[in-house]
Amino acid sequence: MIGIGVIGYGYWGPNLVRNFMKVAGARVVTVSDIRADRLASIHKQYPTVQTTTNFHDVISNSDVDAVIVATPVSTHYELAEMALRAGKHVLVEKPLTSTSRQSLGLIEEAHRNKRVLMVDHTFVYTSAVRKSQELVADNSVGEIYYYDSVRVNLGLFQHDVNVIWDLAVHDLAIMDYVLRSRPLAVSATGMSHVPGKPENIAYLTLFFESNLIAHVHVNWLAPVKIRRTLIGGSNKMIVYDDLEPSEKIKVYDKGITLNNGSDNFYRMLIGYRTGDMWAPQIEVAEALQVEAQHFVECIESGRQPITDGEAGLRVVKILEAASQSMLQRGQLVKIDLGRLAA
Amino acid sequence: MIGIGVIGYGYWGPNLVRNFMKVAGARVVTVSDIRADRLASIHKQYPTVQTTTNFHDVISNSDVDAVIVATPVSTHYELAEMALRAGKHVLVEKPLTSTSRQSLGLIEEAHRNKRVLMVDHTFVYTSAVRKSQELVADNSVGEIYYYDSVRVNLGLFQHDVNVIWDLAVHDLAIMDYVLRSRPLAVSATGMSHVPGKPENIAYLTLFFESNLIAHVHVNWLAPVKIRRTLIGGSNKMIVYDDLEPSEKIKVYDKGITLNNGSDNFYRMLIGYRTGDMWAPQIEVAEALQVEAQHFVECIESGRQPITDGEAGLRVVKILEAASQSMLQRGQLVKIDLGRLAA
Amino acid sequence: MIGIGVIGYGYWGPNLVRNFMKVAGARVVTVSDIRADRLASIHKQYPTVQTTTNFHDVISNSDVDAVIVATPVSTHYELAEMALRAGKHVLVEKPLTSTSRQSLGLIEEAHRNKRVLMVDHTFVYTSAVRKSQELVADNSVGEIYYYDSVRVNLGLFQHDVNVIWDLAVHDLAIMDYVLRSRPLAVSATGMSHVPGKPENIAYLTLFFESNLIAHVHVNWLAPVKIRRTLIGGSNKMIVYDDLEPSEKIKVYDKGITLNNGSDNFYRMLIGYRTGDMWAPQIEVAEALQVEAQHFVECIESGRQPITDGEAGLRVVKILEAASQSMLQRGQLVKIDLGRLAA
Amino acid sequence: MIGIGVIGYGYWGPNLVRNFMKVAGARVVTVSDIRADRLASIHKQYPTVQTTTNFHDVISNSDVDAVIVATPVSTHYELAEMALRAGKHVLVEKPLTSTSRQSLGLIEEAHRNKRVLMVDHTFVYTSAVRKSQELVADNSVGEIYYYDSVRVNLGLFQHDVNVIWDLAVHDLAIMDYVLRSRPLAVSATGMSHVPGKPENIAYLTLFFESNLIAHVHVNWLAPVKIRRTLIGGSNKMIVYDDLEPSEKIKVYDKGITLNNGSDNFYRMLIGYRTGDMWAPQIEVAEALQVEAQHFVECIESGRQPITDGEAGLRVVKILEAASQSMLQRGQLVKIDLGRLAA
Repeated sequence: MIGIGVIGYGYWGPNLVRNFMKVAGARVVTVSDIRADRLASIHKQYPTVQTTTNFHDVISNSDVDAVIVATPVSTHYELAEMALRAGKHVLVEKPLTSTSRQSLGLIEEAHRNKRVLMVDHTFVYTSAVRKSQELVADNSVGEIYYYDSVRVNLGLFQHDVNVIWDLAVHDLAIMDYVLRSRPLAVSATGMSHVPGKPENIAYLTLFFESNLIAHVHVNWLAPVKIRRTLIGGSNKMIVYDDLEPSEKIKVYDKGITLNNGSDNFYRMLIGYRTGDMWAPQIEVAEALQVEAQHFVECIESGRQPITDGEAGLRVVKILEAASQSMLQRGQLVKIDLGRLAA
Repeated sequence: MIGIGVIGYGYWGPNLVRNFMKVAGARVVTVSDIRADRLASIHKQYPTVQTTTNFHDVISNSDVDAVIVATPVSTHYELAEMALRAGKHVLVEKPLTSTSRQSLGLIEEAHRNKRVLMVDHTFVYTSAVRKSQELVADNSVGEIYYYDSVRVNLGLFQHDVNVIWDLAVHDLAIMDYVLRSRPLAVSATGMSHVPGKPENIAYLTLFFESNLIAHVHVNWLAPVKIRRTLIGGSNKMIVYDDLEPSEKIKVYDKGITLNNGSDNFYRMLIGYRTGDMWAPQIEVAEALQVEAQHFVECIESGRQPITDGEAGLRVVKILEAASQSMLQRGQLVKIDLGRLAA
Repeated sequence: MIGIGVIGYGYWGPNLVRNFMKVAGARVVTVSDIRADRLASIHKQYPTVQTTTNFHDVISNSDVDAVIVATPVSTHYELAEMALRAGKHVLVEKPLTSTSRQSLGLIEEAHRNKRVLMVDHTFVYTSAVRKSQELVADNSVGEIYYYDSVRVNLGLFQHDVNVIWDLAVHDLAIMDYVLRSRPLAVSATGMSHVPGKPENIAYLTLFFESNLIAHVHVNWLAPVKIRRTLIGGSNKMIVYDDLEPSEKIKVYDKGITLNNGSDNFYRMLIGYRTGDMWAPQIEVAEALQVEAQHFVECIESGRQPITDGEAGLRVVKILEAASQSMLQRGQLVKIDLGRLAA
Repeated sequence: MIGIGVIGYGYWGPNLVRNFMKVAGARVVTVSDIRADRLASIHKQYPTVQTTTNFHDVISNSDVDAVIVATPVSTHYELAEMALRAGKHVLVEKPLTSTSRQSLGLIEEAHRNKRVLMVDHTFVYTSAVRKSQELVADNSVGEIYYYDSVRVNLGLFQHDVNVIWDLAVHDLAIMDYVLRSRPLAVSATGMSHVPGKPENIAYLTLFFESNLIAHVHVNWLAPVKIRRTLIGGSNKMIVYDDLEPSEKIKVYDKGITLNNGSDNFYRMLIGYRTGDMWAPQIEVAEALQVEAQHFVECIESGRQPITDGEAGLRVVKILEAASQSMLQRGQLVKIDLGRLAA
């Protein structure tokens, strides 16, 4: 039985606790938060879970095998590092850390202590993203032309990070999982509408080695909620709408067909295909439940998590580059993510 | 009775002819197209309209008071200039010309000949865009924070212009009409997925003097059709969905409220407003009918059209700058649109 | 070249004229309407079409081979009968006549004069209905369990007929074409909300020999427009939404599977299938254009139209029975539609 | 602190437990279910809650002040009666009982024992239904013309009750709360598509003293989920779509205006209004949480619940009449619900 300790019981913490309560092979031992009213709410719903206002109690608790860090981003590194050093496995809310240097530090610390380090890239564990990954991996989509995502709503303004670190991180995590190539450079634009606060609206364009182009639009100040991703390929195109109750993934047999005109060396013929649409059945499962189970299994088996420290690091590197580009109004910034593993 | 001559009967020409047939005070005299089958189709539906394969017949026809140019962009300048020189009033399909220099040339030619020069920025004549303009002009929306538009579908690939000149031109024309300030610089990214062809997907970010930011996403290769614009302001936010059959404009009483914290000079309090939504009744009218009527009225009265040569020029200048930025992967390019008239 | 004469240029007449103008092998010769302003509008758009305020001019015109009756229902019989007697082919707007006796009269008159009698069941000529018919005919859907249609909006109140005769007629015409069995009885309910006027809201349930059940909801006083039909079968289920711009037909691989439990004679096992959804590509074509072409082809070839007088008669018989049931608040009324042709 | 005991931990039981766990002033003491695996699942999530396979343990538990009956309908009466006799307050899942006679029995038993009897008409506690009730009560909607509800999806087939008792019960409960008049008669039609099983599709028309008409369409075998109610009135019309994430209630300023023509006694003029639409902000709250709190407050204060035994009885009477009408294919069946309280 893996003992779970949770640091931070704000917006996401209750979802983590609720899901880990249901994982076979795990039990939630203790939760810390600096706010007494949050702890009272735990006590009411989960009378057997210990609570504390001191996160040290979580890290030093000998019944705790794994620590979940669900606090503001600026504290991720320090808390995760302490937990790893104390010999705990660690799951960190996204994004992994505030800087790529910190991410590297956690990866090394986990390696040194032979502990599992996982980042909570939740969307990677949704059935819809997994289905998209399959359709890309088995070449149904063909050559990927573009990846376009819109993730906007009237959201909580974060005080310590801009909207890229809060929302675009989801899209970058999905791309890291779904696409077979990695971005080489980014051009980003954005704006702050609250004096002294970080950017609340942003647009990222990512360039790759091929003519794949990726774009992400994130906005904390939109009147409507939109969560839609288009993946356009040479064979098929995917529309992934996370707000659709049942048909989250639609696959369109639409596109263009290029033929070399035989009579003329220079001439390309462009044919249009507009065909059927197909919405594969998507398993209904709460992503966080799948993820929680995966974390516990990785601890038990010693396997590398799908969203490991390296995945967290790659995403943080792009976030850093995008923020830098945004300050320079779209100036291209290179990204070095290393080579793809064969 | 204003005699109308139309040059070009491809995709848009039939819509022009159908609408001008219904305008009180006008009659369609003649239509030219180089394709005989297109002319046969006119003859079948409008037996009284003359047809010709030679555009000179339109320009030199003494029953023709006004010429409509509905040919590929690359020919706009030459045809419009000839028509103006022949003393005709001219309506040119969007965009006005291929270069800002050409637009300037047409403006001067129209001025010299005291003829009406109008550009077919069709969306400006929709009830939805007019309602949006009103809501911005009367300060209902408040300070404008952002303008975000998505205009994508599986569209015809143009061979002579990129997707910006084909689709973003609509959004730039709407912005020119709705917003009270003009962009100072643009950062654009895009990609071509057909070797040797112009970009079929593009993203534009426009910067203004204030912290207004505008973004346009255009794509010829999308599996679904989207025509949605978000206008976010300090008081209200507008969602304009052109594909909604009846509620094209929705006005949300949502947003953020900034208060100066009284106890601390540096501290800003951010309050969230989530209020009612209101969809004003929008008059049902075909935009092109309104526009055709407006063109004829401007000819009769000598008034300046809403979408005059200057509006056409401003849009072409942004298109030029955006295309230039796109070649440099998002590099900021300045735009000089002159001062707003008081 | 078939000469076409149109009687009635109200709501639907302009659509008829516009479409017949484009039919190869036909030409619109003359149109009658008692309102001078309607005729002026024809003259403006179609200067070569003759106009008259006297319908006798249409029927007696020797250039007219076929007469289209697009007047209020109460006049259909008299006008169509006169036209048939004058040796004209006739297309009558739906419903065919005000009574089944009148429909029978027209069928006989057409037979006597060897002329084509066709009823304008427009929806039968849409690509979506034709695709639905195919999916039923080739047994993709399996045994049909139910047919459920909602057709509501803020519509024009008719003064001479209730909402069933105005709107449900569409669904009955579609069912007549798509389903392989015919209703035996109807239970209908409805209400008038304008004193002295016919019912503006109505609900019809149709019973068949099998356990197929059909239901139609029509309403002139709904705030939103809905045009949705569900066809549930043992293999597949179809959702036909006529307001969907591109995916009008969706086919769901969902349903129930019945198995006989082997261990117990009386026990049925019910399994649930929730599978993929598939939206077949639907050809984009204006139904009225297809129908106009079909009418002209039937005249030329002597073939029986798909929506012939018999189809018109069957629909009128159901309308009569439903109206009678509605007066008795749902009392079951039998319908005798004769045997299905093998 | 009110002690809660729950009988039945099937589909709905977990939602009840989860919500009562959060109610201030209450605690979940014990839960019974005959299935051991269900009880194990409780133990995992709520280690402090007692479990038992014997419902008598719940009823006889002296720490239990209130019993919640969440078992199949056929057992409601017996369990609720035993609990009331044991001096417990009782909340019964909808519908209250299998027969109106049983409902009457429970009402009397509760009265005798001075205990709270409440029926779980959950939708009455949603913000959307409460807003609808307000708009009807304050006459915003005006005279109610019709109430039309569609509640369909691929649902679990119930073995002991037909689809009316499972789904239409929701609509009847909402009507009972929202409308100011009560139905006098019902005509219902329906069909079973599984041999030997109850009807899985049904249509109800309810008649009232005025020309209000209500209709409910319920279906366990629909490929898509629809939860939409139209309320049409003389002033406004409401569209309540329970699946809309944020704008569940839309109020349309559309309708007809009746004027008496001054020149002619018999003539009614019908004017059409098509105006703005307004979507009031709806509070986000889980209905079952509101309901659970209300139940506990009624116990503490002795107040009558909004959804008391009488409300449960009225709904059961309509369900009985509708089932009877359905057997006779739409034959009108009268309903006696007593007079509305002033």
